[in-house]
Amino acid sequence: MDIPNRNAPLGVFDSGVGGLTVVKALRKLLPKESIVYLGDTARVPYGSKSPDTIRQFAMEDTQFLVSKGVKAVVVACNTATAHALPLLEATFRVPVIGVLEPGVEATLEDDQCSRVGVIGTEGTIRSHAYQHMLALRRPDVRIHAISTPLLVPFVEAGWLKHDSLKLVLETYLNPLLDKGIDTLVLGCTHYPLLIPVLRKVLGPSVRLVDSASTCATQVSRRLKEEGLLSTGRRKPSLDLYLTDLSEQAEELARRFLGAETRKIQRARLS
Amino acid sequence: MDIPNRNAPLGVFDSGVGGLTVVKALRKLLPKESIVYLGDTARVPYGSKSPDTIRQFAMEDTQFLVSKGVKAVVVACNTATAHALPLLEATFRVPVIGVLEPGVEATLEDDQCSRVGVIGTEGTIRSHAYQHMLALRRPDVRIHAISTPLLVPFVEAGWLKHDSLKLVLETYLNPLLDKGIDTLVLGCTHYPLLIPVLRKVLGPSVRLVDSASTCATQVSRRLKEEGLLSTGRRKPSLDLYLTDLSEQAEELARRFLGAETRKIQRARLS
Repeated sequence: MDIPNRNAPLGVFDSGVGGLTVVKALRKLLPKESIVYLGDTARVPYGSKSPDTIRQFAMEDTQFLVSKGVKAVVVACNTATAHALPLLEATFRVPVIGVLEPGVEATLEDDQCSRVGVIGTEGTIRSHAYQHMLALRRPDVRIHAISTPLLVPFVEAGWLKHDSLKLVLETYLNPLLDKGIDTLVLGCTHYPLLIPVLRKVLGPSVRLVDSASTCATQVSRRLKEEGLLSTGRRKPSLDLYLTDLSEQAEELARRFLGAETRKIQRARLS
Repeated sequence: MDIPNRNAPLGVFDSGVGGLTVVKALRKLLPKESIVYLGDTARVPYGSKSPDTIRQFAMEDTQFLVSKGVKAVVVACNTATAHALPLLEATFRVPVIGVLEPGVEATLEDDQCSRVGVIGTEGTIRSHAYQHMLALRRPDVRIHAISTPLLVPFVEAGWLKHDSLKLVLETYLNPLLDKGIDTLVLGCTHYPLLIPVLRKVLGPSVRLVDSASTCATQVSRRLKEEGLLSTGRRKPSLDLYLTDLSEQAEELARRFLGAETRKIQRARLS
């Protein structure tokens, strides 16, 4: 019980299916790892809810994954990371890795960056977690963080090329462009699907930092440090659990994960 | 225990704060009635979730109100009404009144209506509840029902005058206009806040049916029939419970209820 089994699966959770962008990145970078994914689709979204509620949900999600015998837990949700990571780390014995720190590291990899925009849910932005972490490491960087609550609904509706989305993005982002941002942090695991339209609205000069792929890099490093990289020779598994199985959630899961289709199981928490 | 107390409060629930449009209408029409309102803001929205989950949540919501001693329950949520009303009626002894039937009645009050559009959440539209009820009563009416999942996020973001909302509405509603609808049913208690912009997009000739005010009329009639109208002389109370108390939810509650501000309590279900 003391040392987690390195050939146990990795646990990943999100409020919904957005965290599958992280799973996709993990499977690319760590193809030998088995993964158990939990999407709390019955209570999605977390981004508009209060810190207390977000922490309670994150605890229940982590408990579910731990009960499945995972060797580490990836919090593939910016809102849950922003409010619950310290609590999860203090409560569970397995390593818990969030999406925020990797995003901050990737942002600061470029020494030249001096004006950073951050977009995310109400919960993520209100937590000031990105703002705080960036300010601690690079006090000279100017940070402009705004909540962009309409973006998740657009991604979930699949309206990625609609003119209305462009208008919404311009309204959100023009004030950041006016402030001269050189980097934009996508502080929500839904947002990587917006990269093509973001490119159009922002032009070529703003660097986009996507927390999904940078998170996978950090998970890989952390597993290595802890001696937890899989040595298994069996085909790695991917188990998908959702707390609500609507048709929409299943279709979305496929959209986020790519062509692969696989059986999704219903999870009951608590 | 057998006969509900006519001076007990009326219970009203919704997935979130949208149902406060119904509370507002109830307080106007039935100023003597005390009301206990429950908004399940911890799990909002219901509209994108599966029938099983919606039914489970609606049962828990109703149980909470019944535990507060209400004399009747108003399901101020189209999605919950569409999927759970028969179950709630079969399970609880107090009268349970949904928002759907009143909307259908108000639609058919105009004998001339022949092509009816219905907009609502994925869950409401997929349930075919409006389509079914309309077809049963007026088989000659042509029904065009579409789900409009981006509208609740726009209402909640408060972007009621943004050009992007107009584009979104045009994309949703132009196909209905092309089919020559004479009536549009607003099948979601969030949508009354969209009436000004809907008027602009639809022009003056399409009649709008708002389920919030028609629901209040039906509640009044039903309470009269059952001998449950309040005879109390004390100032009626309004107790607001939310399952999650985010700043956003409290602000939204005020927007929906109008100028009145009052204390909101946190409800814990089950």
